[in-house]
Amino acid sequence: MDADLNMSRRIRRTPYTTKAVLAGVTGFSVVNHMLLPKSYGKSIEEDYWHLREFVQVWDVSCQRQVQIEGPDAALLIQKMTPRSICDLKVGQCYYITIIDDSGGIINDPVLLKLSENKFWVSIADSDVLLYAKGLAIGMELNVLITEPDVFPLAIQGPKSEDVLAKLFGDYIRQIGFFNFGWVNFQGTEQLIARSGYSSQGGFEIYLKGKEMGPDLWDYILEGGAFCNISPGCPNLIDRVESGLLSYGNEMTRENNPLELGLQKFCSLDGSIDYIGLNALQKIHKRGPTKIIRGVIFEGDPCSACTIPWPVFYKDCQIGRITSGIYSPRLKKNIGLGLIDVEFSELNQTVKVHLPNDVKFKGSITSLPFC
Amino acid sequence: MDADLNMSRRIRRTPYTTKAVLAGVTGFSVVNHMLLPKSYGKSIEEDYWHLREFVQVWDVSCQRQVQIEGPDAALLIQKMTPRSICDLKVGQCYYITIIDDSGGIINDPVLLKLSENKFWVSIADSDVLLYAKGLAIGMELNVLITEPDVFPLAIQGPKSEDVLAKLFGDYIRQIGFFNFGWVNFQGTEQLIARSGYSSQGGFEIYLKGKEMGPDLWDYILEGGAFCNISPGCPNLIDRVESGLLSYGNEMTRENNPLELGLQKFCSLDGSIDYIGLNALQKIHKRGPTKIIRGVIFEGDPCSACTIPWPVFYKDCQIGRITSGIYSPRLKKNIGLGLIDVEFSELNQTVKVHLPNDVKFKGSITSLPFC
Repeated sequence: MDADLNMSRRIRRTPYTTKAVLAGVTGFSVVNHMLLPKSYGKSIEEDYWHLREFVQVWDVSCQRQVQIEGPDAALLIQKMTPRSICDLKVGQCYYITIIDDSGGIINDPVLLKLSENKFWVSIADSDVLLYAKGLAIGMELNVLITEPDVFPLAIQGPKSEDVLAKLFGDYIRQIGFFNFGWVNFQGTEQLIARSGYSSQGGFEIYLKGKEMGPDLWDYILEGGAFCNISPGCPNLIDRVESGLLSYGNEMTRENNPLELGLQKFCSLDGSIDYIGLNALQKIHKRGPTKIIRGVIFEGDPCSACTIPWPVFYKDCQIGRITSGIYSPRLKKNIGLGLIDVEFSELNQTVKVHLPNDVKFKGSITSLPFC
Repeated sequence: MDADLNMSRRIRRTPYTTKAVLAGVTGFSVVNHMLLPKSYGKSIEEDYWHLREFVQVWDVSCQRQVQIEGPDAALLIQKMTPRSICDLKVGQCYYITIIDDSGGIINDPVLLKLSENKFWVSIADSDVLLYAKGLAIGMELNVLITEPDVFPLAIQGPKSEDVLAKLFGDYIRQIGFFNFGWVNFQGTEQLIARSGYSSQGGFEIYLKGKEMGPDLWDYILEGGAFCNISPGCPNLIDRVESGLLSYGNEMTRENNPLELGLQKFCSLDGSIDYIGLNALQKIHKRGPTKIIRGVIFEGDPCSACTIPWPVFYKDCQIGRITSGIYSPRLKKNIGLGLIDVEFSELNQTVKVHLPNDVKFKGSITSLPFC
């Protein structure tokens, strides 16, 4: 498909958009009605190698925050997720799923606990705010639900700690994985978490105060020059290699957390009450019918999967690859997808059907790929 | 901004996407996580003149249906909208707003009553399904809420009735504005409404059965050749001239229906109970602080508004244009936007600030423009 996506005012710009354009952004995607830079003109492979060695700055403002605060905030959040938040402490992040009454996944956000009665739900691409609002109104909960002006900027890659320690002090080295602290920028306190949508380590600054966006962008890019910093974006090769799931690709409301391999984040014994508990218990009892797996397959290096690629065993479709690409490091084509349980054993041979009647032999593997 | 939006698998294709590509689509936007064709290579002005004289086929599959059915379906819908649905009959469509407990607009869909206990909410760009699900779960309502595989195809323009009468019989001439009936296509019954996002008249076929999408596209384009039919998309000039509002542009959750001039669709006397009633009553009592208006302004023909254009009176910003473009028929620059009430009288002189410090004299006008 040659046609591109058009810009529209309805699709929101970010505080960094102007800077991204100056830096030569060549394409955007849309997440949560907001722009997400997708390329700065280099190939996915070039960006991949750079991300693995140096450090990149990503405008991930589209990770919108659903702020839930008030006496019933924790209650509402626990209603929405099968992961127990009993032990979540202020300053911690949890990866959670939000599910509906059928166990279908509505989103897979990162949850941040700001105080006992205040949380941010840092969302993937669906309007979690509307689900939370509906529940709160229907259940007559005492909460305030808003989308604050918070614009995450990700600093990803092995040199990200060095860059941020230089800019914000060695304190940031103390922040543990999926924990957050606060740094000072232009006299304001800004939340910084050790997290991000790559497997190369890094941080996310949840900038509050959009007028400081361009300055923060410049501050980090200029301050990181000694580490060969560059603007970037979530990298498909890195994501598939490390088995990072993508809402809208690997999962939608058609899927439940158990088939996505997220059982460790699901309380199933009934000790925690949430919407969809009964549904998940039923699925757990009979066992999910499909399960997330890696698929390695032969053939020339493939381009990114833009339409799901059916996976066959003999004449029978047993699943599909929902994210796939060539890994230049593993020197193999790799993909993520849901596979029928009976064909999901490791080393199961399969056939992957790419567009234009191209078929390659492959095999099932565990995740991450390496 | 030169960068385009990139394609992503997360952004859903439609049953007509392949046909749109073959027809030369040059750009897409994203609405409800789905592709919306935005151009077939001609200028907005060329498309505008064609739409006013002939007939076009638009892939508006992104107008997703939130299907609400069950004993409490009407109750849930009435909870979500300030417009009384007491008199809505099976076979009728209503333009409604869906609001939250503050009166903020969540969506401005078209509501279709399929039977006493079954409705489609044909939505603009926000996940109404999640709001409805949240409410239904929280209120313990007996409803089933789904997004069926329904893919609207719009046939718009003065010749649309002739084309569809030829293809589906003279029966379709009997369908009144904002009413719907059923036509037969390949042995299936398909819903057809006299509606659409243009002011040139037309119909929307709510295709159920995506495998028939390409055939339906061909059937209409081939059958409409005698009326100079062509593929097209919602036209900004036509939309602004006729004052058709756009969710995400003219309104968001920051706005209420009263400032959007939608009071006629709001029951305010307390006879109908819905979420946000108290909030709307309060706003109504004190009067909205801003109100939707047209703005006509001088200068060379302007391009489409991609960043809101502030509207000033002397040194004071009194509003902003959220959709604007040059009307080749009125031979004037025109825009839609919310204007502070005290400056909203007709013929009020204003100044419009375009990008790059370009300022033009203008005046406030009523809607539609003509």
